[in-house]
Amino acid sequence: MSDSPGAALRDLRERKPLIHQITNYVVMNETANATLAIGALPVMAHAVEEVEEMASVAGALVLNIGTLSRHWIDAMLLAGRAANAASVPVVLDPVGVGATTLRTDTAKRILGEVDVAIVRGNAAEVAALAGLEAEIRGVEAIGTEAAGPTIARTAADGLGVVASVTGPVDHVSDGTRTLAVANGDPLLATITGSGCMATAITGCFAAVRAGSPVDAAAFALAAFGAAAEAAARSADGPGTFHARLYDALYALTPESLDERANIGDA
Amino acid sequence: MSDSPGAALRDLRERKPLIHQITNYVVMNETANATLAIGALPVMAHAVEEVEEMASVAGALVLNIGTLSRHWIDAMLLAGRAANAASVPVVLDPVGVGATTLRTDTAKRILGEVDVAIVRGNAAEVAALAGLEAEIRGVEAIGTEAAGPTIARTAADGLGVVASVTGPVDHVSDGTRTLAVANGDPLLATITGSGCMATAITGCFAAVRAGSPVDAAAFALAAFGAAAEAAARSADGPGTFHARLYDALYALTPESLDERANIGDA
Amino acid sequence: MSDSPGAALRDLRERKPLIHQITNYVVMNETANATLAIGALPVMAHAVEEVEEMASVAGALVLNIGTLSRHWIDAMLLAGRAANAASVPVVLDPVGVGATTLRTDTAKRILGEVDVAIVRGNAAEVAALAGLEAEIRGVEAIGTEAAGPTIARTAADGLGVVASVTGPVDHVSDGTRTLAVANGDPLLATITGSGCMATAITGCFAAVRAGSPVDAAAFALAAFGAAAEAAARSADGPGTFHARLYDALYALTPESLDERANIGDA
Repeated sequence: MSDSPGAALRDLRERKPLIHQITNYVVMNETANATLAIGALPVMAHAVEEVEEMASVAGALVLNIGTLSRHWIDAMLLAGRAANAASVPVVLDPVGVGATTLRTDTAKRILGEVDVAIVRGNAAEVAALAGLEAEIRGVEAIGTEAAGPTIARTAADGLGVVASVTGPVDHVSDGTRTLAVANGDPLLATITGSGCMATAITGCFAAVRAGSPVDAAAFALAAFGAAAEAAARSADGPGTFHARLYDALYALTPESLDERANIGDA
Repeated sequence: MSDSPGAALRDLRERKPLIHQITNYVVMNETANATLAIGALPVMAHAVEEVEEMASVAGALVLNIGTLSRHWIDAMLLAGRAANAASVPVVLDPVGVGATTLRTDTAKRILGEVDVAIVRGNAAEVAALAGLEAEIRGVEAIGTEAAGPTIARTAADGLGVVASVTGPVDHVSDGTRTLAVANGDPLLATITGSGCMATAITGCFAAVRAGSPVDAAAFALAAFGAAAEAAARSADGPGTFHARLYDALYALTPESLDERANIGDA
Repeated sequence: MSDSPGAALRDLRERKPLIHQITNYVVMNETANATLAIGALPVMAHAVEEVEEMASVAGALVLNIGTLSRHWIDAMLLAGRAANAASVPVVLDPVGVGATTLRTDTAKRILGEVDVAIVRGNAAEVAALAGLEAEIRGVEAIGTEAAGPTIARTAADGLGVVASVTGPVDHVSDGTRTLAVANGDPLLATITGSGCMATAITGCFAAVRAGSPVDAAAFALAAFGAAAEAAARSADGPGTFHARLYDALYALTPESLDERANIGDA
């Protein structure tokens, strides 16, 4: 088929979808700015009184469990169900799942009560969510790159989602089709919220590729990674990289994205 | 009269007023940094146990409904009434009013229970607040610039406030006197919180021009817009623009502000 | 003894301690990024359901009262006691103590119920906490630099902590040994959260120098101040300084830190 990251970016820039994000306090500004820079419109709303109204008119809903508390969990579940009812795709970022019981239980509860289209996390998070910890520990001995496709495929199968596993190389799978995305830069690991920004960008692409969540997830990681590569070239460290990351997301064009995107079969 | 944006900035830098802000999670860091850069002192406090104490000793109180929840609404009302009792000017930013019932109801409740000096919002927000939606939809067909003065004047009249409507050209009105402020840069629309920062700066000027809220609102938008113009000249995109916006606010002098401010009758 | 800031930084980079931070909304992103840039791993978690689990596996716990509310106070006390039980050092930042009753009471309650290793604040905050306000007011007449050592020593004695008082020159004391740290730059006062970042960095060094909190506090302020000096050299104002501060923290090496650190007896 003729679809491409650049074609999706062109659609995104034309439609400017509203991306409703219930995310953590640490990265709200960052994910909102990444959303704007790629060309979509962010809205943050977490009150139980308004999340259903907001989620049902959004192009995508992003749920991120990075700084949980009781009211926020209630809001995520309400928003998730409202999004489902309105056929709005839901993207989940299970930040820190496995680190505490609250996070593990909450991520599983969201997956149980909401139809999640895409889960975006690092290898440890996605593995923990899919109950792969024991098996993974062995696989990790031969490197995360080797474990990535297995984690993505197994999590997708087990959880009934598209699993988007970021790392030195990213892996995206719906259980049958598994893609590798080789864009990005090590400086991403030096700023907080880079994973959460990748998730927000995934929401942006999901809004314009709701029917093809594997493509949405892969296109988003290619776009975010390509921007990171460009930002790294003129950065002197994490702080200037962070500022230039927004410049680079904004400067992406459909053409430059298609040229730089490095997506292949895993 | 001989007052000017530069004269107000000189007073602001000398008095360093404390600006109490009950604002949204997304932009707290940004509005605090903008407040510091222009020369005032920000303080964020939202607990019902302390907002009255804080608001009553502040130079201005800024209320922003960008990420509401029940306790925060209670805090805004308590702080607003304490500010009124202490003759501290109150500035309201009705972020997203019209988008959900919670936001619309909360903005109206604040206007009903608190004596608000200045409302700062975009054309859609101020129009929604003033119940102008139906009429405005037609006016917008001939462009926001054309609608701006009408929205500002009508909202000021109807709500009994100074209405400060930002857009490509900003319009400020107390219902009888209406000013146009033609400073700013399109890059402002590419970063989250630029409107919230304009509101925070409005609070800073309100603290030193409490007796003349139309001037305070226009001076603030001229200062913020002039800084944006300077920042845009050395920016490569939204991220570097954002960093340089603080540099430019900090670098403003009474003289450079008076030279660049573009305020006229609307 | 042969210990030095550079030796501690080397340990920090090798061990990458997890720094659990229950901090204020305004600076969460900034303290997380400062923590990453110096070489440690930040985690923000504030739910009463998970803070004990998180604090007990951390290398240090940082409590910051900058934007309090009831649930957060509960979480700070729970996390603090769990950290104590697990011998995890606790660092307290009493932001705005003295400004409202809630802040003063909360800071004192934390000091009463939790064994705090280090309190990091400015002169006014530490003095207020130690009940020194009346005496200090006179001392301040002859300058903060003169008052710093007295405030640090007296607060350390009275509160049973290491007091870390930042200002133009910083002073750190355990009541008997008092050090002066002469690193830093005036631009630190133009960005919000610079004090909170100093506290987060203090937590990072406390994690690798738990047995010597005076050294941990002084090393942290030397590292943060040395980074600020480097950042200021290529900054055009608060915004570019802020971005370059992370670059500079990241670029510090054990050797460059030992060379630039300016720590002496007070």
